[in-house]
Amino acid sequence: MEAAGEGALIAQYLRPHTHRHPGAFALLDDAAALAVPEGHELVVTADALAEGVHFLADDPAETLAVKALSVNISDLVAKGAAPFAYFLTLALPERCGEAWLSCFAMGLGRVADGRLAGGDLIRTRGPLTLSVTALGLVPEGRMVRREGAKPGEEVFVSGLIGSAYLGLKCLVGESLGAVSSLDDSSRARLVGRYREPVVEMPERLAEGVRGVASAALDVSDGLILDAQRLALVSGVAIDIEAERVPVDPAAERLIAEGAVVREALFTGGDDYCVLLTSPLCAQGLQAHPLWRERPPVSIGRVVDGPAGHVRLLDKAGNVVNIPRSGHDHFRKGGAE
Amino acid sequence: MEAAGEGALIAQYLRPHTHRHPGAFALLDDAAALAVPEGHELVVTADALAEGVHFLADDPAETLAVKALSVNISDLVAKGAAPFAYFLTLALPERCGEAWLSCFAMGLGRVADGRLAGGDLIRTRGPLTLSVTALGLVPEGRMVRREGAKPGEEVFVSGLIGSAYLGLKCLVGESLGAVSSLDDSSRARLVGRYREPVVEMPERLAEGVRGVASAALDVSDGLILDAQRLALVSGVAIDIEAERVPVDPAAERLIAEGAVVREALFTGGDDYCVLLTSPLCAQGLQAHPLWRERPPVSIGRVVDGPAGHVRLLDKAGNVVNIPRSGHDHFRKGGAE
Repeated sequence: MEAAGEGALIAQYLRPHTHRHPGAFALLDDAAALAVPEGHELVVTADALAEGVHFLADDPAETLAVKALSVNISDLVAKGAAPFAYFLTLALPERCGEAWLSCFAMGLGRVADGRLAGGDLIRTRGPLTLSVTALGLVPEGRMVRREGAKPGEEVFVSGLIGSAYLGLKCLVGESLGAVSSLDDSSRARLVGRYREPVVEMPERLAEGVRGVASAALDVSDGLILDAQRLALVSGVAIDIEAERVPVDPAAERLIAEGAVVREALFTGGDDYCVLLTSPLCAQGLQAHPLWRERPPVSIGRVVDGPAGHVRLLDKAGNVVNIPRSGHDHFRKGGAE
Repeated sequence: MEAAGEGALIAQYLRPHTHRHPGAFALLDDAAALAVPEGHELVVTADALAEGVHFLADDPAETLAVKALSVNISDLVAKGAAPFAYFLTLALPERCGEAWLSCFAMGLGRVADGRLAGGDLIRTRGPLTLSVTALGLVPEGRMVRREGAKPGEEVFVSGLIGSAYLGLKCLVGESLGAVSSLDDSSRARLVGRYREPVVEMPERLAEGVRGVASAALDVSDGLILDAQRLALVSGVAIDIEAERVPVDPAAERLIAEGAVVREALFTGGDDYCVLLTSPLCAQGLQAHPLWRERPPVSIGRVVDGPAGHVRLLDKAGNVVNIPRSGHDHFRKGGAE
């Protein structure tokens, strides 16, 4: 009876991604029933993506699914939480029919790991909007906060900064100039980070963050802005050494050519890696049993200073001017 | 620094509605930490509302807040779950600035009961979209399912059917004819049910549903369609006696005048009350300690028959034709 309806679409394209949750009732009910393991508490985050704001109108459905879940997984992991369950609502314009949903489902297959537990499909006359609520688990009281960084601690990032920013430039014609010298494989790698910011081994990364971080958050709106946010809530200042921030080799080449300024990579957004502070030094962290592989990279230090103040320093220790600190779609003017 | 930014707007308009959740960290962090009380499990539901599809472009911000939360509370209650925490993402077009958010927050104040635990504000170039994920609590294993209705059981609804449908007609000029004879107070009451489907005493209603229902769901897309959904998953058929379905006194007058056909009220949608089946009869349910006030009204019976088949019967027991069974924005053709 609902052959062409919401129920049938959900059954075909979303149900296959619920297999870890018997309490999702194969999406045949109105809600999911989830038991939280003893000694654990929930970490819950909600992030939405809108066409034309957070992704491009011609981004493929498959990569949108990957991105929508990944940005939420990134949020969980930065809080030290292992992914538990995802709830997805899609506001779909008419053009997004079965073919679109079928591609979207392929993307879900790559990152949902059977943890989808509910969702809603609605029609909209406007642009495509994806909204995800992600539930994660931490041992009781162990969520890693923005609050907690202390002067003297080191500041780390778990991945490369600025790749998605350059990937977006590769996709948007008007800015092609800056990235025109890139070879195809670099271009594909950078575009990949913009479209599919997959978090590798999220459980292990979450455990690593929980094990060593005094404070953390995910870098989503630009390294500088997110560092400011952490510093503000922690009541500290942060110094970042520009040349220690890890960037893609292709980004280094563009900087060397003068096609891109290094600072621009730190305000670009869409990095989806973890910024964390720790009482451990870089060597201590590399030797930590939870961080044998790919330990985060030290990029600076928590210092005394005005709460929320972030300074970017060059090799000589001089302050580098930052034109604007990151993305906030609600802010009218610039910052800093 | 983020004076006109997302952070400041969240602080001013959303934070006041988080007071029951210390683990919402006053919305100063990226995620909420929530402890589920021992012996309980989570019931989670996600529902989105889009302008032009689920509400009118000129619906006031205050009533939108009430509606967005209420439709999710209705879902929880129908599953026997008491409201626990809400996560809200708003995709806002440019016209929705601080004045809009201020009104929206007033609506939150009326229904959120301090249970907001997280949210996201994003800008969109398209219509306003509100997405809510609601978390509720049930004693372990006690979520009420769509599955479980058995032949011989009675079918009940917890509220009036068709009021929101008539309320929408009052608001939409083109259909004014049918409702033109309504007095102002009836009009206001019906419009109120369309815009603000508040669930009164949700904890008590949830407990009542859990205490007596073999199966239940909330009536959101039309009584007939939702009855079909319950019947389908339960593998039964349902007979509904049209004249026993409770409707507003003003609706009865419109039916008597011939301005509205009764069946139209059963396919209108937006009722947001509970449809439940129970082995108890109407008298048994009225005498039940959980239902001393406002017990649900018996409207029919679960019967043997093709799974998902719903018949609407008149006083004489004849089958009434139903033009279409309810709202499914994804279905191209009709149903039944």
